[in-house]
Amino acid sequence: MRARHKPWADDFLKENTAIVELNPASRKGNWKQEISDGKPIHLEIGTGKGSFIDGMAANYPSVQFVGMELVKSIIVSAVEKVKNTGRSNVTFINENAEKLTEIFAENEVDQLFLNFSDPWPKNRHEKRRLTFHTFLSQYQQILKPGGQLVMKSDNRGLFEYSLVSLSQFGCTLEEVTFDLHQLDDPMNVMTEYEEKFSAKGQPIYRCRVSFPK
Amino acid sequence: MRARHKPWADDFLKENTAIVELNPASRKGNWKQEISDGKPIHLEIGTGKGSFIDGMAANYPSVQFVGMELVKSIIVSAVEKVKNTGRSNVTFINENAEKLTEIFAENEVDQLFLNFSDPWPKNRHEKRRLTFHTFLSQYQQILKPGGQLVMKSDNRGLFEYSLVSLSQFGCTLEEVTFDLHQLDDPMNVMTEYEEKFSAKGQPIYRCRVSFPK
Repeated sequence: MRARHKPWADDFLKENTAIVELNPASRKGNWKQEISDGKPIHLEIGTGKGSFIDGMAANYPSVQFVGMELVKSIIVSAVEKVKNTGRSNVTFINENAEKLTEIFAENEVDQLFLNFSDPWPKNRHEKRRLTFHTFLSQYQQILKPGGQLVMKSDNRGLFEYSLVSLSQFGCTLEEVTFDLHQLDDPMNVMTEYEEKFSAKGQPIYRCRVSFPK
Repeated sequence: MRARHKPWADDFLKENTAIVELNPASRKGNWKQEISDGKPIHLEIGTGKGSFIDGMAANYPSVQFVGMELVKSIIVSAVEKVKNTGRSNVTFINENAEKLTEIFAENEVDQLFLNFSDPWPKNRHEKRRLTFHTFLSQYQQILKPGGQLVMKSDNRGLFEYSLVSLSQFGCTLEEVTFDLHQLDDPMNVMTEYEEKFSAKGQPIYRCRVSFPK
């Protein structure tokens, strides 16, 4: 997702420490005690402008949602959105997914979400895809035993790749659909991308897998 | 696949024992010695009118193909086709997939194919789908260790179901595509259904999985 440079972004994040964790690695091992008040932690990697996490937080008040987004000029939109809706069960971290195991201890996360991740279609960029095995190893580490990952994408190549990569890692497919919006799932919360793509009639893929322990 | 009744079908099969095995259970444990002359055995379950098996037999002369088809008035078309092309590496059996383990011994089959199997879309017919776990157990038994199943379908519901069913059985996904004909795989051999559906622009799904041992 491209976004224009926002010079005020740093200050804005620092002003909103009620919902922004500026030093997430300092919480490692203590997220449930210090942040979620014992609630399960659901982590969205690449949270974008926050529509999904804000909608999920509304639907599931007994869950603490953590939204991770690397791009500062994008995460500020998500922070703004949650600030406006006044949710108390969302925390944002402006970090790279490569640092997951520096931020969360083993078994500390209850569920993971990947929504419309960058497909990195070129073979030489395979290792940047968020379902490349190095990322899956990190997910396995931070997820509780039996923890699940829910992935949505509009990109056929990324989705096909991910099904194979997840299976070869040892994940079990619990559910898959190649046309989410034909299911008419009342609990589905749409991301910004999803609204746009499905309005154009493009099918949305979704899978839910459980990790091996 | 519907076909009109052909009263001459029985006689026709009996006249073509060079490529039709009338008592396949009698070969159990001896397919490689008595039928394939030591060649690997690739079994298509639901061989229909035989386009796929005939094309595969032409492409892979060092493999013995076995085509299983329950409907007599359909298998006669397959037998006719292979009789005309004169292939010696195809054997047909007019049997039900439920009898697989009566026909083949453990590890006797090297590879399996399921092409455009009946989707049985109603929930109450789930157990008739050829990727229901009772069938997968039979496949696992007759397949050699590391043996693979290649499945093609135009039916989204059956394909989604099958990916989950195979994964939950413990199979590993080696390859998947949601639009086979965009791949332009020069080794793909089309079935009758596939020719018809892909001419209409419908996507064809394909996966390749390996079975656990």
